[in-house]
Amino acid sequence: MNFADRLINAIKEKQNPTVLGLDTDFINIPEYLKEDYKLKYGKTFVAVEKCIIDFNKQIIDATKDIVPAVKIQIAFYEQYGVHGMLAFEKTVEYAKQNGLLVIVDAKRNDIGNTAKAYSNAFLGRVDLFGEKVPSPAELDCTTVNGYLGSDGIFPFIKDCNDYGKGIFVLVKTSNPSSGELQDLETDPKRVYEVMAEHVNNWGKDVVGQKGYSSVGAVVGATYPKEAEILRTLMPISIFLVPGYGAQGGGAKDVIPCFNKDGMGAIVNNSRGIIFAYKNTQKSEREFANDARDAAIAMKEDLTAALQEAKICAWK
Amino acid sequence: MNFADRLINAIKEKQNPTVLGLDTDFINIPEYLKEDYKLKYGKTFVAVEKCIIDFNKQIIDATKDIVPAVKIQIAFYEQYGVHGMLAFEKTVEYAKQNGLLVIVDAKRNDIGNTAKAYSNAFLGRVDLFGEKVPSPAELDCTTVNGYLGSDGIFPFIKDCNDYGKGIFVLVKTSNPSSGELQDLETDPKRVYEVMAEHVNNWGKDVVGQKGYSSVGAVVGATYPKEAEILRTLMPISIFLVPGYGAQGGGAKDVIPCFNKDGMGAIVNNSRGIIFAYKNTQKSEREFANDARDAAIAMKEDLTAALQEAKICAWK
Repeated sequence: MNFADRLINAIKEKQNPTVLGLDTDFINIPEYLKEDYKLKYGKTFVAVEKCIIDFNKQIIDATKDIVPAVKIQIAFYEQYGVHGMLAFEKTVEYAKQNGLLVIVDAKRNDIGNTAKAYSNAFLGRVDLFGEKVPSPAELDCTTVNGYLGSDGIFPFIKDCNDYGKGIFVLVKTSNPSSGELQDLETDPKRVYEVMAEHVNNWGKDVVGQKGYSSVGAVVGATYPKEAEILRTLMPISIFLVPGYGAQGGGAKDVIPCFNKDGMGAIVNNSRGIIFAYKNTQKSEREFANDARDAAIAMKEDLTAALQEAKICAWK
Repeated sequence: MNFADRLINAIKEKQNPTVLGLDTDFINIPEYLKEDYKLKYGKTFVAVEKCIIDFNKQIIDATKDIVPAVKIQIAFYEQYGVHGMLAFEKTVEYAKQNGLLVIVDAKRNDIGNTAKAYSNAFLGRVDLFGEKVPSPAELDCTTVNGYLGSDGIFPFIKDCNDYGKGIFVLVKTSNPSSGELQDLETDPKRVYEVMAEHVNNWGKDVVGQKGYSSVGAVVGATYPKEAEILRTLMPISIFLVPGYGAQGGGAKDVIPCFNKDGMGAIVNNSRGIIFAYKNTQKSEREFANDARDAAIAMKEDLTAALQEAKICAWK
C-alpha cells in the first residue's frame, strides 16, 4: 500500500501525529544499563551494540501504543561501525514486529546508480546473485537531501512506487544556520521555496487514496512563518517536522505545518522522549516509564493545539 | 599531520593526482568471481561480503603503486547491511595497510550532535564507556553535503583539526540536474558560488604547511567553466573532481580545477578503472590487470594535459 496512506492510517489509529525519534546516542543511555553490559561483555563494541538494542526495545515497548512511527537517526549507530549497524538492524526489526512504521533519518544523497544503491539499502531490493531480495535493513521511509537535484531523487521515487515506500526531502531544516543556503533569495523565490516546488512536482506520481503523496518534506518547527508558505507550495506533501521540544519549537509553532484537515504533518521528538529520564527526579531505572509519560504529554500537547486551531482530526 | 599536506605528499610521491573510486557495485563484479563465492557460501550476504573484499583487495594490489588514494563509495556497501559494512571496514583496513589515503564518499549531512556522530564514524573518536577510541571505520577524509549550513560542518572541521583529517564539501556536482539548485541565481551570485565562499571560510582554520586546506570541495569535471570561477573563489581548497571518464569529462576539462602550481585537485575515476575489464576483449579473470592498465592510462592522460597546460608539478 502507498506509504502516505499507511502513515495517515497509523496517525488516525493512534490519534497522534508524533514520530518517536530513536536518536540513541550511547553516551546518554542510563549509567546502570551501560554498567550491566560492561560487566557482561567488557568495554567492547559488542557491549555497545547489545546495550543500544536493549534500551531501544524498552523504549519501543513503553511507547508502541502511543506513537504511530519511529524515526531512527542512523548517525548514532553508524559511528559504532558494524556493531552499530547490527543494533540498527535489530531496532528496525523490533519496531516493525511491533506494528510501528519505520523511518530512517539518513539524509542520503547521490546520483544515478549510487542513489539507487542508497534507495536499495532502505526502500528497495538488492541484487543477490541475480535475484532481487529485500535489503537487510528494509524499512518504510528515508529522509533525503536534494542538493544534487532530480538525478538524486528519481531512483528513490521509483522504489516508492514499486514497493509502497516514502521519502522526506530536506526543504527548510530546523537548525540556526539553515538559512545560509536555504534562505538565499533567488529571483523571485528563496532556495527553500524552489526546493519545495521540486518536492511538489516529484510527489505527484506517488499520491495515495487519501490525497497525500509519499514524497514528503522536512520542515523545521523552529520556522513557523516559513512553514505557512511551504504548506501552500506543497499541499499534498506530508511534513516531517523536527525541532519540537529540545530545539525550542512548541505545539503552536507546528500548527502551520498541518493542513486544514488536521493531517499533513508528523512531528518528531527524540531526546525529549527517549532521554526524558534526565529531566525527572526519579531513578534512571524508570527511563522507559519516563519516555512513556513524555510521549503521552506530547500527544496531549499536540491534540490541544490542533483542537484550538479547530483542525483536530480525531476529537 | 594535516590532511591536505598528507594528500599533497602522496600525490607528489606517486606523481599522480588520481583518486581510485572503489564504487564496488556487486552486480558488476566478474561472473567467475561471483560464482566462486556462490559455490563456497551459497546465495548469501556472507558470499557478497567475501566476494567484494576479494575483488577490492585484488584491485588495490594492482594499483597501489600507481594511485595515492582511494575513494570508497559507501552506498554500494550500505545496501548489503551489516555484511556490506564488514566489506567496507575490511576494505578501509586493507587500503590503509597498503599505504593509501582513504576517502569515504558518504555525502553525510546533519546538525549538532548528529553531525558529530557522523564525523565520529569516519574521522573522529567514539565513546566507549567513557573512553574516546577510534571508530571501527576510522579513515582520512569524507565527503559532506552543506545544505544545512555551518551547523552541519563545524563538528567535522573540529575533527579535521584534532586528528589531521579532511572533508570535501559538495559545491558543484557533476550530474546533469546539478543546476536545479546549485545554479540558482541569487543576487549577485549563484548558489554554488555562495557554497564555495562558505567552503573557503570554513577552510581557513585547517591550512597545512603547503598552503592548502583540509576543507576541500567537490567540483565536477563536467563543468569546466564553473570550475574556473570556483578555483578563484576557493584558492586554498583542494578539489575532488568526479565525472572524468564514464560521465564524459576529459583530461582537458579537469585542468581548470588545478592551481597554477599544478596542485589543488584530485581527479576521481571509479567504473573506468575498477570495471575496465568490461571494455576489453580479454578474459574477465584479467580484471585486476585491466584496472592497472586503466589507472596507468589515466595517470598518463592527466600528466600530458598538465604538461600541455604548463602546470605539471613533476615533469
